[in-house]
Amino acid sequence: MARKFTRQDLRDAAEKYKNWGKWGANDEIGTLNYTTPEDIVAAARLVRQGKVISLALNFDQHGPQGAKTAYPALGRINPLHVMLRTGTDAYSGVLDHRGIRAADDMVVMPLQCGTQWDGLGHVFYENFMWNGYDCREVTSFGAQKCGIEKTKNKMVGRGVFLDVPRALGREALEDGYAIASADLEQACKAEGVTIKRGDYVIVRTGQMERCLAAKSWDGYPGGDAPGFSFETLEWIHRTEIAAIASDTWGCEVRPIETEAGINQPWHWITIPIMGITMGEIFYVADLARDCAHDKVYEFMFVAPAIPITGAVGSPTNPLAIK
Amino acid sequence: MARKFTRQDLRDAAEKYKNWGKWGANDEIGTLNYTTPEDIVAAARLVRQGKVISLALNFDQHGPQGAKTAYPALGRINPLHVMLRTGTDAYSGVLDHRGIRAADDMVVMPLQCGTQWDGLGHVFYENFMWNGYDCREVTSFGAQKCGIEKTKNKMVGRGVFLDVPRALGREALEDGYAIASADLEQACKAEGVTIKRGDYVIVRTGQMERCLAAKSWDGYPGGDAPGFSFETLEWIHRTEIAAIASDTWGCEVRPIETEAGINQPWHWITIPIMGITMGEIFYVADLARDCAHDKVYEFMFVAPAIPITGAVGSPTNPLAIK
Amino acid sequence: MARKFTRQDLRDAAEKYKNWGKWGANDEIGTLNYTTPEDIVAAARLVRQGKVISLALNFDQHGPQGAKTAYPALGRINPLHVMLRTGTDAYSGVLDHRGIRAADDMVVMPLQCGTQWDGLGHVFYENFMWNGYDCREVTSFGAQKCGIEKTKNKMVGRGVFLDVPRALGREALEDGYAIASADLEQACKAEGVTIKRGDYVIVRTGQMERCLAAKSWDGYPGGDAPGFSFETLEWIHRTEIAAIASDTWGCEVRPIETEAGINQPWHWITIPIMGITMGEIFYVADLARDCAHDKVYEFMFVAPAIPITGAVGSPTNPLAIK
Amino acid sequence: MARKFTRQDLRDAAEKYKNWGKWGANDEIGTLNYTTPEDIVAAARLVRQGKVISLALNFDQHGPQGAKTAYPALGRINPLHVMLRTGTDAYSGVLDHRGIRAADDMVVMPLQCGTQWDGLGHVFYENFMWNGYDCREVTSFGAQKCGIEKTKNKMVGRGVFLDVPRALGREALEDGYAIASADLEQACKAEGVTIKRGDYVIVRTGQMERCLAAKSWDGYPGGDAPGFSFETLEWIHRTEIAAIASDTWGCEVRPIETEAGINQPWHWITIPIMGITMGEIFYVADLARDCAHDKVYEFMFVAPAIPITGAVGSPTNPLAIK
Repeated sequence: MARKFTRQDLRDAAEKYKNWGKWGANDEIGTLNYTTPEDIVAAARLVRQGKVISLALNFDQHGPQGAKTAYPALGRINPLHVMLRTGTDAYSGVLDHRGIRAADDMVVMPLQCGTQWDGLGHVFYENFMWNGYDCREVTSFGAQKCGIEKTKNKMVGRGVFLDVPRALGREALEDGYAIASADLEQACKAEGVTIKRGDYVIVRTGQMERCLAAKSWDGYPGGDAPGFSFETLEWIHRTEIAAIASDTWGCEVRPIETEAGINQPWHWITIPIMGITMGEIFYVADLARDCAHDKVYEFMFVAPAIPITGAVGSPTNPLAIK
Repeated sequence: MARKFTRQDLRDAAEKYKNWGKWGANDEIGTLNYTTPEDIVAAARLVRQGKVISLALNFDQHGPQGAKTAYPALGRINPLHVMLRTGTDAYSGVLDHRGIRAADDMVVMPLQCGTQWDGLGHVFYENFMWNGYDCREVTSFGAQKCGIEKTKNKMVGRGVFLDVPRALGREALEDGYAIASADLEQACKAEGVTIKRGDYVIVRTGQMERCLAAKSWDGYPGGDAPGFSFETLEWIHRTEIAAIASDTWGCEVRPIETEAGINQPWHWITIPIMGITMGEIFYVADLARDCAHDKVYEFMFVAPAIPITGAVGSPTNPLAIK
Repeated sequence: MARKFTRQDLRDAAEKYKNWGKWGANDEIGTLNYTTPEDIVAAARLVRQGKVISLALNFDQHGPQGAKTAYPALGRINPLHVMLRTGTDAYSGVLDHRGIRAADDMVVMPLQCGTQWDGLGHVFYENFMWNGYDCREVTSFGAQKCGIEKTKNKMVGRGVFLDVPRALGREALEDGYAIASADLEQACKAEGVTIKRGDYVIVRTGQMERCLAAKSWDGYPGGDAPGFSFETLEWIHRTEIAAIASDTWGCEVRPIETEAGINQPWHWITIPIMGITMGEIFYVADLARDCAHDKVYEFMFVAPAIPITGAVGSPTNPLAIK
Repeated sequence: MARKFTRQDLRDAAEKYKNWGKWGANDEIGTLNYTTPEDIVAAARLVRQGKVISLALNFDQHGPQGAKTAYPALGRINPLHVMLRTGTDAYSGVLDHRGIRAADDMVVMPLQCGTQWDGLGHVFYENFMWNGYDCREVTSFGAQKCGIEKTKNKMVGRGVFLDVPRALGREALEDGYAIASADLEQACKAEGVTIKRGDYVIVRTGQMERCLAAKSWDGYPGGDAPGFSFETLEWIHRTEIAAIASDTWGCEVRPIETEAGINQPWHWITIPIMGITMGEIFYVADLARDCAHDKVYEFMFVAPAIPITGAVGSPTNPLAIK
């Protein structure tokens, strides 16, 4: 990274990459619009082996939240799964008056605590959200615009997996490594894939696998990480992809490439300005192994959000279907 | 319904339909095993229009929980979506010291409060759960066996939609209507579909649409409802389907067809004895309309559970992809 | 009520009753300051029988939230009490590897769902909270000023119970009855008590007892109710009481005495302008009975808030000690 | 500690200290019965300065849960305080259509996450709870017997503060220090107090102050700690106190004084066998300072539980009133 980006750089990028109005003044889903019915039909044709690979971490107390990090958790805890009725109740006979022995349960879960989609209500640019909506549309009552429920029929298309470290001949990218557009192109070339409009692009850094191997998430949530360079905005804009995801906490490189006072500059542009939905904390180890083995880096991708009304994100169990 | 089923009928059914051991002593997913890779490839070939139809209700305070019903809610509330940071915080300038204006949120959600999968840890037969596991495997710490996370690479296959009331020439089935195997066969015939091993079968009763039209869920959660007759166990067993879902609160007919002291007898057999995963509170109005229009009642079905470790159920956003 | 109060009336009242700065620019507890150590000593002297009377409803699913009302619940549900470990786990033997058989539990609870204190961060007047603090001190991260934890050494003093309906010769006040200062004075006279600076005043309307007798909270949360007239601001200001509480959902009379666009005008003035902490949903039936019997309407009052940092309210179990 | 206690020692202690039936077969509050009305009147007479000292930690994310410890947290997290409406909403104008600008909030809180009472449903001895009730009375639906709500008119009496390290001439007791009856007696003597039947006894170890000074709770929740020796059961039984509390996570000394397979032996006896309510995580630094200064170690003690129906514990804001 040659120099720190400034507020003026952000303003310039906002001007350059702004997709507001592209799908009408009432659009609430942004680049998810890029995927056409034809793309979905074509994506389904990629299913040749009948193999399903989940890209989700399990949701439990072993998740990345609560790990040591300089970044404040701001209320993000690991999912708290609690039982409302149990098999031990059944065994104890206390359910029998009900005529059925059943267990039931509940979760208390920040929507961005694990494998997750960032919705378009998640990040604001100044006083605006995606498509120019006023940021005050996201109140304590939820997102009146761009709630994640607006995507309930989306998140289906061609998935392309870019294993960047593999393309660069490494196990994993080191923390602070800023993935450049050239790296993404190199991965495409190494894998023999071409990105098309409407694709769902999943990028591996290898950071999560390092954490899993170390049995420690320390530093993962909000700490230094490999990730997208601010410069990849150009690539994302040009390729017209539907969504982008990675195996890190926040997709973009950390430490941040900006001057003081600006945090996560890539987020400032991607979500509210470009309208791109973003996947984070994707578990890609199984997919990486599979793709390395069969050399097929494209697949049908289905990763529905749970349509929680007014939510600015959602846990998901993304499936790569090959 | 000619007569009330008795405990002996349940014992007989348990004996007759028991799939324990069929996929090995360590199996935790039951009939989901029926779907083969070939089935998944074939299912993908059903995607011809590139159309995605969500079968999920939105998850919010307008859901069915809390409605008037004689059945106790037992802790099932509608999802409580709360914000951890908002656009109004952004507007107020209180986030700016963080260098990014972002919203975040959380949900408190019973796992069976809306459109959902019943996992195999949900119901017990005497002291046993699916595959003969001891019911004490489901403690306050969750399901040590058959947790919903075990299905994370499943819930993909051919979906078949059986619009029973339409096949019977009605708008909707009345409450208390016990869907018989013959009804299911009649729907297959009317729609020109044949059920195959490993299918995901979604059955419409029309009850949910009645509630939505009436703008009231009163009676829906646990009240009288159309649904599967105890006798359909035979059909389910014979067809070797992967999973079955419906648009009602509990799939099976209510009032219950059993003598006093037995509630939900169909559940007693389906989940712990047969090992069949069950979908409930599926929103099928859009799918019904679409199938009636194009006469195509089969599709690719993808409905991943959120892999919450040890959960006995999961919200899902099921997708019918045509 | 002769006429609807207007915005100008609110502005006038704000000017007239404003206590900002009275206890210094940094004060965060308002009229709780009125109670002196001498008052506390004197209050303790009122303990003559060694009798403790709780003024709390139990916190459970039978609470007033969720009842039918025209007023939106805005996320207020009854407390959701869930177990983390149980006696049935113990009985089932699944805890024994831990060497101790213990149960544990959790609550999900809006802080103003039952018997509760409204903290001084609860209501704003225009852009201000108590003592002139900017309302933006109450963000999604909680109340940076006037959090309920600031009261942790307070809520002790002389309690005076004013049984208004009894003084007026009625069972209970009807919904919409606006308690006037004259009514409060009449209750004092009937009971032989004199209000002193620093007192905690608990006022009965009888509405809650009506709901309990009817076994229905319909209309209680936010519906029509007897309660304090706007005119009582004068009485509250003059008497210099520490806090005021009642047995209704919101203390003040409903329907509201103001022109369209202003809801709960008494709250606009009491909390942010006067700095008075307010108790709501107090269960006073037992106390009423006891006072009617022994004719003693004053007692030691201890009602500590749970010091949840940054909270704008708190459940409490208020004790009248006689 | 001379030797490890065995299961036989526990059986002997259970036999020796059992209070079952002492207050009738239907009693659900145990030793809280010891405090008489006369005791409460006398306690009130101890209020001489009008000073109120809270013994509660604030409830927030800085609490002891989640700290490093070998002991599993079992779902105990620090309180999660979330806002339902905010001052930033108010500032943003999004509440104005409601006619009132108000904030509101909610907490997700294990009931034993901070300063708390252990209720009598918290610990079982074999298949029994206090007074011989079957442990299956505590199901996923809560404690049908001995719920904390049964104490709603209790928790008032004479408080006695025993500053054990001070009496022993130390700053704090070291981890693993087993407080003996002789230590308690020595503290009484040093302070000039005599324990009476029905007292609430609060014992300082100094461990919490060490954690607060170190700004780290590591080791506190379930780790090594100073605390009551098994042998103090004799003292507790003899003195007939109402309740006992301390500034540690679990009152009793850790490491545990028992042979393998028995954890927290003192709890096995105190709660289910003796029926004594226990306070944990009490913040006593302010009280210690005050008592050291005025040499008065007795006071009126008021520490109401929040009466959550069926709860096996409760957060509390205990007040020492002098």
